[in-house]
Amino acid sequence: MSSSIGENLRLSIFGQSHSPAIGMTMEGFPAGFSIDMDRLDRFLQRRAPGRNAWSTPRREADAPEFLSGLVGNTTCGAPLTAIIRNTNTRSADYELLKTVPRPGHADYAAEARFRGYQDAAGGGHFSGRLTAPLCVAGGICLQYLETRGIRIRAHIAEIGGIRDEGDPLESAAEKDFPVLSDERGEEMKALIAACRAEGDSVGGIVECAVTGLPAGLGEPMFGGMENRIAQIVFGIPAVKGVEFGDGFGAARARGSENNDGYAIREGRVVTETNHAGGILGGITNGMPLIFRAAFKPTPSIAKPQRSVNLKTGEETELSVPGRHDPCVVPRAVPCVEAAAALAVTDALIAPCPILPKQV
Amino acid sequence: MSSSIGENLRLSIFGQSHSPAIGMTMEGFPAGFSIDMDRLDRFLQRRAPGRNAWSTPRREADAPEFLSGLVGNTTCGAPLTAIIRNTNTRSADYELLKTVPRPGHADYAAEARFRGYQDAAGGGHFSGRLTAPLCVAGGICLQYLETRGIRIRAHIAEIGGIRDEGDPLESAAEKDFPVLSDERGEEMKALIAACRAEGDSVGGIVECAVTGLPAGLGEPMFGGMENRIAQIVFGIPAVKGVEFGDGFGAARARGSENNDGYAIREGRVVTETNHAGGILGGITNGMPLIFRAAFKPTPSIAKPQRSVNLKTGEETELSVPGRHDPCVVPRAVPCVEAAAALAVTDALIAPCPILPKQV
Amino acid sequence: MSSSIGENLRLSIFGQSHSPAIGMTMEGFPAGFSIDMDRLDRFLQRRAPGRNAWSTPRREADAPEFLSGLVGNTTCGAPLTAIIRNTNTRSADYELLKTVPRPGHADYAAEARFRGYQDAAGGGHFSGRLTAPLCVAGGICLQYLETRGIRIRAHIAEIGGIRDEGDPLESAAEKDFPVLSDERGEEMKALIAACRAEGDSVGGIVECAVTGLPAGLGEPMFGGMENRIAQIVFGIPAVKGVEFGDGFGAARARGSENNDGYAIREGRVVTETNHAGGILGGITNGMPLIFRAAFKPTPSIAKPQRSVNLKTGEETELSVPGRHDPCVVPRAVPCVEAAAALAVTDALIAPCPILPKQV
Amino acid sequence: MSSSIGENLRLSIFGQSHSPAIGMTMEGFPAGFSIDMDRLDRFLQRRAPGRNAWSTPRREADAPEFLSGLVGNTTCGAPLTAIIRNTNTRSADYELLKTVPRPGHADYAAEARFRGYQDAAGGGHFSGRLTAPLCVAGGICLQYLETRGIRIRAHIAEIGGIRDEGDPLESAAEKDFPVLSDERGEEMKALIAACRAEGDSVGGIVECAVTGLPAGLGEPMFGGMENRIAQIVFGIPAVKGVEFGDGFGAARARGSENNDGYAIREGRVVTETNHAGGILGGITNGMPLIFRAAFKPTPSIAKPQRSVNLKTGEETELSVPGRHDPCVVPRAVPCVEAAAALAVTDALIAPCPILPKQV
Repeated sequence: MSSSIGENLRLSIFGQSHSPAIGMTMEGFPAGFSIDMDRLDRFLQRRAPGRNAWSTPRREADAPEFLSGLVGNTTCGAPLTAIIRNTNTRSADYELLKTVPRPGHADYAAEARFRGYQDAAGGGHFSGRLTAPLCVAGGICLQYLETRGIRIRAHIAEIGGIRDEGDPLESAAEKDFPVLSDERGEEMKALIAACRAEGDSVGGIVECAVTGLPAGLGEPMFGGMENRIAQIVFGIPAVKGVEFGDGFGAARARGSENNDGYAIREGRVVTETNHAGGILGGITNGMPLIFRAAFKPTPSIAKPQRSVNLKTGEETELSVPGRHDPCVVPRAVPCVEAAAALAVTDALIAPCPILPKQV
Repeated sequence: MSSSIGENLRLSIFGQSHSPAIGMTMEGFPAGFSIDMDRLDRFLQRRAPGRNAWSTPRREADAPEFLSGLVGNTTCGAPLTAIIRNTNTRSADYELLKTVPRPGHADYAAEARFRGYQDAAGGGHFSGRLTAPLCVAGGICLQYLETRGIRIRAHIAEIGGIRDEGDPLESAAEKDFPVLSDERGEEMKALIAACRAEGDSVGGIVECAVTGLPAGLGEPMFGGMENRIAQIVFGIPAVKGVEFGDGFGAARARGSENNDGYAIREGRVVTETNHAGGILGGITNGMPLIFRAAFKPTPSIAKPQRSVNLKTGEETELSVPGRHDPCVVPRAVPCVEAAAALAVTDALIAPCPILPKQV
Repeated sequence: MSSSIGENLRLSIFGQSHSPAIGMTMEGFPAGFSIDMDRLDRFLQRRAPGRNAWSTPRREADAPEFLSGLVGNTTCGAPLTAIIRNTNTRSADYELLKTVPRPGHADYAAEARFRGYQDAAGGGHFSGRLTAPLCVAGGICLQYLETRGIRIRAHIAEIGGIRDEGDPLESAAEKDFPVLSDERGEEMKALIAACRAEGDSVGGIVECAVTGLPAGLGEPMFGGMENRIAQIVFGIPAVKGVEFGDGFGAARARGSENNDGYAIREGRVVTETNHAGGILGGITNGMPLIFRAAFKPTPSIAKPQRSVNLKTGEETELSVPGRHDPCVVPRAVPCVEAAAALAVTDALIAPCPILPKQV
Repeated sequence: MSSSIGENLRLSIFGQSHSPAIGMTMEGFPAGFSIDMDRLDRFLQRRAPGRNAWSTPRREADAPEFLSGLVGNTTCGAPLTAIIRNTNTRSADYELLKTVPRPGHADYAAEARFRGYQDAAGGGHFSGRLTAPLCVAGGICLQYLETRGIRIRAHIAEIGGIRDEGDPLESAAEKDFPVLSDERGEEMKALIAACRAEGDSVGGIVECAVTGLPAGLGEPMFGGMENRIAQIVFGIPAVKGVEFGDGFGAARARGSENNDGYAIREGRVVTETNHAGGILGGITNGMPLIFRAAFKPTPSIAKPQRSVNLKTGEETELSVPGRHDPCVVPRAVPCVEAAAALAVTDALIAPCPILPKQV
């Protein structure tokens, strides 16, 4: 189903940009887990707009209200539902989006798919705002995974060609601008500011590392960790590519370079390198799981663009007014962490029946 | 489920490298479709090993036997099952793979996941041989899609850094070595031969184009064409990255460069460029759907590699003997076409209930 | 998943008896359908408590608030979510239910399943109150099915051994007490009143007829209409049996009695009798689809019952105080209609790809 | 999907009565389980035709060939596929069944669903022969469940109104005619013989008991044991009703009679009676799980019946020649056990994450 994902941990996301509320239902999450609501709020703030100079000045509260699945703050085993009210609903006239689709946005594809019935206001169900409930669900999973010794950290790996530097296993989560190298971060911020000034936007790459995973997580073929993570990460708007370990770089390597030799370190089997990004045959090998997601530039730009009037069939020009992020990548960092947390939790609670060895 | 995929067209793949047979069951495929068995056989031959100098000299018949789902060669609506017998079963001693895992292969991850119960022979259920039933299923879908005006063509976009040149909408399928530029193809073949001579291997990229798609195919969020294609393509062994349209390149672009402006051509809405690879918000916009998959180099290499003995806990050295493809990319081209065909067919037969507009 | 059901129309129900709200998300419902909200409210009133003498005097508003999936009152193709606030939350002390389980209720089974984490208040996620969101979803489907010429009508077939009389294709929906024979209805009401006076309760049977179905709906084996309807109807609390057509009566018949011979009436193929209840091989044959669901007596009774204290391990006695329906069957009638409507809609929007016959 | 079922243990059944083979793929079954093939064969023989006087004299070998999922006879974690060759394929002319549908069979419904493309020979995918792969899968699960202390035993509870007598927890599995009371069995056999002599058939009821289940198995709402078992049991051809515990009898009882009071026996919580059939709120309570399935009489009878010619649109008469079981109930007993075993195994291996209580 379109807006649902997961096998054992089933996440369903609902809402449109301007509907009364957006929200999520998560089914299959472990019972008996106490959510740290303050911490969840801080995590959601990392995604929230209006926090700083490089994101849209619009500000929303984005405080989730939990409707079900809890006794106090502890999960009770019933489906967990949380909603976030939309305060800014139905105000604008978005009929224009059905008539003159914005380049790079889903407007035209949605019109073709839903034949005019789609909720066009603010992008409707396609809006980036729907990553807020994704982060509610994923933020809870992040807390849960930490109790199992699993940590997930993402950072901005690249914006407009400027690359971050540092060890991806380090955390940038506590920073306002989540990069490892603050020097590179300043360059990125300058680039974003320049794009904003030009009425333009810029894309980037988020890199994510998952540590503490046991070896043996995931399934062969279509149930691999790569398949699971890709399926959910491509659900974040603007993602156009996903790669694991050396990814597209591995396509240029020799086998003798790309294979990760095994070694024993402190009594544990490890690999000497990690070109595989911790995944072989879809299954974790106990090394850090590393992946990257490519984000295209924000399609909303002030610069004039070519479009067509679907009613008259005439070509026209369009510029997208309003206050948009010239770069979604900084705010996408917690979304990628949330997506990874959902995929990992789904795999972790999967049934994995193995009978004990007969002696 | 690990070895099953699809919502409306449900594909289930079974078998191990050395089990009596491998095969597939496809449920939900349209009734009344007459399979051209000769053409299916020719498609499967493109994947089959032993055809030429740059692939393994091992040769298997790979002729599917259809057990169910047909009346004559026409689908009857019941699940469609085909098997391919394994002629080379249980002959070798593969216990060693459980003890000394091959770098880059799934051996160690499988041991961790299945705790010694996995069928290690020939890679078991993780073997690239399982792409044969994938191609049986996908090959049938390719035939079906052509009757709906949809064509899928893939080519080798890159091997070891050597890039193919040409229009990805052209077909390379009829060639022994599926590249658009035969000149680049010769360079690639020379590189593969050199790698073989060194006991090494090399990776590459397959690019795939789907034309004839209607606008409006796919679903928002997790049901998008990107999610669906990625989920299945990552099921092909050795794939480490998937990108759509400009993919990772889009991450380096400005919005004004990356947005595809709309225009009217011959009365139809088109985009002037196709950086989006035909997908916006997960949904097709009527332009060619373009994606690329990155394949890592074949992990089986003759060069000595570092490994460990899982029983004794000692480090050791390993070289993988036998006749292996130094580059899987040429044979992976039909697999990528098959994967795309399965994802597109699944989306195409999805229920898409829209009520007629009231006048 | 436990609280989700359906393949093409995916319903997810959330909430507990005393959580802030209960609700449902329905994904896959046709876009462009205008919900008649007044009519939906009247349908929900048929299930609501406190309407009359034979149900509990407790009264709740049960007005759904739609959070997403609509533009105005018209479905937009995005997931449709509605919630109903619980006004009576957390007030009572339900810890006792975890300690001394009520016979016939899920208390003890829930304790065993969720090991004390379950929300015991008011039965939690097991509460009959969760049939309210089921009726929201089903009530919308009923409206949709009517536009396709399909009508669903249920009536009380039996209470405590007193049988209704009449043609099950007639509607009893507009009656306060939904029986075909008002005479039998008076007897039933007298029996319910007697049970209430004794502090006891009584069970019954609901019969449901679906007319206007095309022949050819449903799938073989596990996707049959019987499988689909049974799976959802057993989700209504207190249902202990489901039968189609003559059901258990067919088990006592000869083939020559039970087979429904074919005939032509007004140019249409019909059966002369309908022992099959309109279903053969899981698939509709164009005759009315008839099924019955058996409801056990309300487990909450004032009479003293045997129970145990799970903490002390001692046997004890329990009587369930409060205002409970002595018979849930009258209020279950719309729930059965809703369940049938969900199953039929799911089957109706299923992909059913059949290629046109080649001439 | 029509021919697939299960969430964690995913069973897919394929084949038609006259296709080259029938078979099943089971995914998710525990790795490391050694199948006792002789015992499985004896279980399959209980379902096989031609064993005795009261079933069809036709005889098939029905020996499954395992194609994948095993190393030796031990499951390896990959999908488990077994096939049974059909020896009697395509011999007869079944085109008549598409023209003049047999009353009580799926012929007409299949024609409506698949518009002439269905494999009509021998009932195609609707044939009772498809219960053979169901029994292969279920027979393996039965062996697995026994290692976990869970036993499943069914018996003929009723044929044509003659009721078996005895304790349903006793096993009748080792008997040729699986009844508890051999005296009642003789009466049933006489009735079957009389029906055969008249060219008629007769229906019956199978009762099934599952013992050794832990309390707490199953899920609320749609994931209950009743929902799961009903969904699969209605996949056995000819089943028209399913009830749990007192089932339809509970609909005639008072709450004070039907509630099962709790008691302590040997330190364990039990119920003094078992009207609930071991299930409350969909979840097991630790008492034996009891259910019954109603089978209609075999539709194939020699007596002339009314039908229509779908091509000419004329009414006609039909008698079904050949050697058919006048009563499928004896052979259905292992099918019901298999269905129960599949549903219980699916629930047993479900993820059930509960965090340990903090002290």
